[in-house]
Formats: sequence, C-alpha cells, structure tokens
Amino acid sequence: MLYYLKNLTSVWGPFRLFEYQTVRAVLAGATALVIGFIIAPFVLEKLRNLRHSERDLNGIVKDGGKVPVMGGFIVLIPALISSLLLVRMNLWVVVALIIYLGMSLVGFFDDYLKVKKNNSDGISGRVKLLGQGACALIAMTVLFVASDEKTFAASLEVWVPFLKTAVLMPDSFPLWGGILLIVAFFTLVTVSSSNAVNLTDGLDGLAIGCVITTTLTFGVIAYLSGHVHFAKYLQIGYVPGGGELAVLCSALLGGSLVFLWYNAEPAEVYMGDIGSLGLGGVIGAIAFMTHQPFLLIVAGGVFVAEALSVMIQVVWFKHTGGRRVFLMSPIHHHFQKKGWRVSKIVIRFWLLSLLCGIASLITLKLR
Amino acid sequence: MLYYLKNLTSVWGPFRLFEYQTVRAVLAGATALVIGFIIAPFVLEKLRNLRHSERDLNGIVKDGGKVPVMGGFIVLIPALISSLLLVRMNLWVVVALIIYLGMSLVGFFDDYLKVKKNNSDGISGRVKLLGQGACALIAMTVLFVASDEKTFAASLEVWVPFLKTAVLMPDSFPLWGGILLIVAFFTLVTVSSSNAVNLTDGLDGLAIGCVITTTLTFGVIAYLSGHVHFAKYLQIGYVPGGGELAVLCSALLGGSLVFLWYNAEPAEVYMGDIGSLGLGGVIGAIAFMTHQPFLLIVAGGVFVAEALSVMIQVVWFKHTGGRRVFLMSPIHHHFQKKGWRVSKIVIRFWLLSLLCGIASLITLKLR
Repeated sequence: MLYYLKNLTSVWGPFRLFEYQTVRAVLAGATALVIGFIIAPFVLEKLRNLRHSERDLNGIVKDGGKVPVMGGFIVLIPALISSLLLVRMNLWVVVALIIYLGMSLVGFFDDYLKVKKNNSDGISGRVKLLGQGACALIAMTVLFVASDEKTFAASLEVWVPFLKTAVLMPDSFPLWGGILLIVAFFTLVTVSSSNAVNLTDGLDGLAIGCVITTTLTFGVIAYLSGHVHFAKYLQIGYVPGGGELAVLCSALLGGSLVFLWYNAEPAEVYMGDIGSLGLGGVIGAIAFMTHQPFLLIVAGGVFVAEALSVMIQVVWFKHTGGRRVFLMSPIHHHFQKKGWRVSKIVIRFWLLSLLCGIASLITLKLR
Repeated sequence: MLYYLKNLTSVWGPFRLFEYQTVRAVLAGATALVIGFIIAPFVLEKLRNLRHSERDLNGIVKDGGKVPVMGGFIVLIPALISSLLLVRMNLWVVVALIIYLGMSLVGFFDDYLKVKKNNSDGISGRVKLLGQGACALIAMTVLFVASDEKTFAASLEVWVPFLKTAVLMPDSFPLWGGILLIVAFFTLVTVSSSNAVNLTDGLDGLAIGCVITTTLTFGVIAYLSGHVHFAKYLQIGYVPGGGELAVLCSALLGGSLVFLWYNAEPAEVYMGDIGSLGLGGVIGAIAFMTHQPFLLIVAGGVFVAEALSVMIQVVWFKHTGGRRVFLMSPIHHHFQKKGWRVSKIVIRFWLLSLLCGIASLITLKLR
C-alpha cells in the first residue's frame, strides 16, 4: 500500500523512495521484525494458555508437552501486515499469499485438534493432503481467472540449473494440456515443499533456520528474475513484477528471525503445522513463480534430504520386512540417536542449508 | 596467484574468468571450505594430543580441560592457502595478512604457554598488548615503505556513517602529524578489535558466528569500496584494489564455516587466542583499509557490547568499591548466570550480530 506514497513525492520528496523495490524490501524486513518483537510476548502468552504440545512423527512428545505450539503465528502476523503495507500488490504476491494463508490454515486445524481436542493425531494425513491440494487449486484458479490465458500459460515456463533456455515452454503444449500440466506441477511443488518443511520441523530451531536460508536465496532469485537487466544478463526467465516477491520474502525473513529468537534451543515455542505447512508452501509457490522450482531442490537441500530420508526408511522397511537404513527418520533423529546433541545437529544442518543456498545462487551464473 | 591464469586465456578460454573479483571470491570461499574440511580432522588430532584447555576471564575451566584449544588453525591454514591462491596480491591484502598472521602468532604464544607449559595465565596482558601493537606498527611500516607518502597519507581518509564526505582527509594535517595520527589510529582499531573478539570467545560458537557476520559485512563493503561505480554511487571512499580484500574475506569465511562445524555446541575444539586475536585483528585492519573503521562499531556491535560490558563492570566495581552492574562479565556470562542455556545465548547473539551487519550495510545508503 505504501507504494502509492510515491505519488505524494510533490508533498515530501523522500516519498519517491517507495518506488524502489530494494527500499521497500529493506523496510518490509525491518517492519516485520519490529511488529514481530512487539506481538511475540502476547502471542506466546495466548499460546501458553493452550499448554499442549504435539507429538512428532515418532510419537515422541516434545519437551513433555510444556512448550506451546502454533508459534507460526509469530511469523505469519508480522509477515502479513508488513507485506500488505510494503508490497506493490500483484498477481504473483496474491498467489503466494493464498498458498501461505491457506496452508497455514490447514496447519492450524491440525494443531488445534491436537492441542484443544487433545486428539494427538490431529487431522489425518489424507485430509491434510486434500487441504493442501485444495489451496494449490484455489491459487491456480485465481491466477487463471485474473490473468489472460496467455499470461497463465506463460507461467508454465520452467528452468533447470545449467541450461540456458527454459525446458518447458507454454507453446510446447496444446493450451488445455498445458494448463492441466501447470496446475498438476504447481500442486506437486507447493505440497511437497510444505510437507518437507513439516518433516524437518523436529528439533529446536532446525526448520526455521533452513527456512531463513531458503527464503533469503529465493528472495535474491525473485529480485533478479524481476529485474529486466539482471534476468537478461543471467539468462534466466524474466518475471515482470517478480521483484515484489522479494519484498514478500523480506517480510517473511523479518518474522522468521523473530520466531528463531524464541525457538532457539531450548525452544519457548514450536512453530507447529501452522508454521511449517504455511512456510513450506509459500517457499514452493515462490520457487514456482520465479520459474525455478528445480533450483528449490538445491536451495532447499536440507528439506529434500529430510523428506528423502523418510521415504527411503519407509520403502526399505517394507521391502526388507523390517530393516532400517537410518537409526530413525527423519534424518535429524538419526544423528540424535547417534548421540549428537541437538544444538550440534541444528547448527550443522543450518550450515549445510546455507551452503545449499549459496550453491543454488552460483548455478544461476553457470550456464 | 591463479589471477595470472587470465593471461592464458588464449590456451583455454574460461581462464579469463580469473580476472573477475567475484569469481575469485566465490572460488576463495569454496577452496577454503574444501581445504578446511580436509585438514580439520588432522589438526584436531594434533591438538587433542596437547589435551589442555584454557581458563576464561573468570578462571572457569572450559569443559574440564578436555576440549583442545588453538582451533584457530582450522581457519588460518585454509584461509591463508586459499587467499594466496586466489587474491590478486596488493598492499591492502599484504597489510591485512601481516596483521592476521602477526596477531595469530601472539595468540599462539599465549595458547602454547597455557597448554604446554601448564601456565594457566599465558602471557601477561601487557606483553600481549605489546605484541599486538608491534604487529600494527610492522604493518604500517610495510604500508609506508611500499607506498609513496601520498598513498600512505591517503589511508588517513576516514568515513563516518551518515556523512557524505570523509571526516579526516590527508590534507587536513601536516604530513608527519598525519602519519603519526594514522599509525596511532590503525593501532587502536586493530588492537581493540582483536581484544574485543577475544573477550567474546567464551561460549561454544559465539565468537566465530559473530566473526562470520562481521566478515561477511566487510566483505561486501570491501567489494563496494573497491568498485569505482558502486563507491561513487554510494558516496563512500573509493579504494583502488580494495575489492581484493573481499576475496580475502571470502577465504576467511570459508575457513570460519569449517571451524563453526566443529565449534558448534558442544564444541570439539576452541579457537583459542590464536583464533580470536588473529581474526579480530584482521577484521579491524580490513575495516580501516576500506576507510570505514567507525562502521565496525555498528557491524561488530556484539564485540563492542562484550568489550564495553567488561569495562563498565571493572570501572563500576572499582568506583563503588565492589558492586557489580552485570552478574558477570563479559556480558554473555551475565545471561548464563541468569539461567539461559548456552545455545540460546549464542543463537540470540548471532541474530543480533546479523542485524548489526545488515544495519551497517543500510547506513551506506543513508547519506
């Protein structure tokens, strides 16, 4: 909204600064940070009154049920307010926010059932997947309705690291085939990303730290792909208005830093599914809309490894009739079983996630 | 050295890439990272054989003397090899390396006395200061001898956040007065920075994490001030060849990330004085040579707070005849006494240090 202050430049000169994405990105991060630190104590107080914690995949009650869940609100509220204030709203941001809010809502139901109804399983995996899929479909419908068919089909453009041209172009398909493909692919990317972050969220600070490095990476990518000259120079797909997604990323980063402040070991709050499903979903959506979903496999390497470790464990267990590859999955529990302290696992996974982010940015230049 | 591969472009085209500072910076970080992970196990093995740990300021033996010190080698060896390979050597880098190696040597003597001679005090504070001061003087002498008087005096240029011009210009002083001033100021900056990092090094991962954010910040600043257009655009002092300091920073970052891998709580190795004095010194030297020593107060805010907490504690203690401002100083111990777990203090200090770094970069644009 504040973007339009630029029209008041004649009233006060510096208002022209609101025209610049970089200025608004910095302000979005700072605003989310400030709002976050202001509301966090109140949110924590509210959540503590619910006083139940969830069980992780392996049925281990985290910290004896004393740590409140649904800390995702500490990211969501500041990020939402800050981005509404500072983003110059466009279709990309609307789609990203639909996914973020929608998947957060799915996570909220899950958390709420666990905490309030004392239903330790929350909603079933099938219902959760259906909810996430519905969010993806709604977001795609909005994108389709609000844009013309050509713009919509243009979203099909998909780039792969190291190649100088898009691997999928809208005109390689008949229109309706293309539309079906884009909807299916978008759903796949956002739902997988959402669930991968959810699986990663098992140790204090682990998921949010990796969310921070990945969001930072895609913030940079969004800025570059939304910039005519940089996109051309790097030979990546130009996304008109994509730079506004960088402003959104910055708002998400501000909120995430505040959350990490309280989530650092020993955690005073867990993000819960409202945090992990929403944040994972929005990262997937941003990766898709910047035309770089495949780069998310590199940048979000830790999430990928966590998800793969679960799949490998399950498949191997069934295939061999009871043998395990890892002492426990997701893989962070494997190291825990090996005797590593939580802080060591978390910091090392952060370092790996940071290196994955840097590596993915470097691939942009390697073509 | 590899910079000169650019002359072999006729042999193999991509050799031309070695001309670019950004390419060499990325390679310097990657090289240091790889060398670091290769040598770390051997260095750790060597250090474990010494098997003594040091006492911190308050005489607390860290982890019962089981954790080896002198982990600074894990940063120093990879950073040195990598920067010798990838930096296009110039006077700025030579001065930075003199400070880094010299102050590391002072730290090494201190560590060595503590560990090997079982002298728990190491060398005295006075001798340490003299050693650090000597390093600064040697570095300044080299700078003076190798450059002409004009270039040397030009190093006096000092910038302050928010101001559009340098506050100290070489021609504001008679030449010898200017030279005395620059030597005194350089000594002050590097020795303070060196000791501030030393004071910060009291909890697993704390110092190296803040070193990483500060080095990253000054890597960016060095790149910008060494770039004609960016320096002009941002109205900061242009430092010809200063961009090579960014390559050095990248090498330091690669080594630091490896060290953090092993220093993450519970630490398998401490950096020791060889790490903290050397790294603190080189950061101070880089801040000085990019003409932004005052920005180091912002970017290295955590180091400043740690050093101030010690001074305040000591002065207040003497002034009031025994009363304390903090439960214990340096300030990280204050929070430890308040019952915060190490991981929580460390991660929160990292977050603050990251925000300090971002804030200092933002001031570059605010003039």
